[in-house]
Amino acid sequence: MINEEDKEIIKRFGMHLAKLRNEKDLSQRQLSHRCRVDYSKIGAMERGEVNVTLITITELAKGLDIPPKELLNFDLE
Amino acid sequence: MINEEDKEIIKRFGMHLAKLRNEKDLSQRQLSHRCRVDYSKIGAMERGEVNVTLITITELAKGLDIPPKELLNFDLE
Repeated sequence: MINEEDKEIIKRFGMHLAKLRNEKDLSQRQLSHRCRVDYSKIGAMERGEVNVTLITITELAKGLDIPPKELLNFDLE
Repeated sequence: MINEEDKEIIKRFGMHLAKLRNEKDLSQRQLSHRCRVDYSKIGAMERGEVNVTLITITELAKGLDIPPKELLNFDLE
């Protein structure tokens, strides 16, 4: 079950993903072409609508050319 | 769809989780008491059977008292 705290984590992940993507000057569609993640799913993740999985995190990391752990390098507080 | 490369990532995450848990001298059951993750699920994750989600990663990190990104700090090659 997803509680308020979980929603906040999912939202912060999405904001962090958008930040990393923008730092690489990639559109959602460009990023989706660099990994096995559909651009509509990238949009949903950035809006904080998806509890992303390990495999999707590693795919996004490939597309962004960063280590997977960087995608979790955001503040939870 | 889960391919061989994905299976390897899931397996390596599981081995890394087991290593971190053992470093903290916690049994699977002890770890499960410190976070909202059932001990049977911890076992399945460590056996490389679960494509873990962001929320579960952050719960495990709480239970292990480490930053979530440390759970993704393993080699994929």
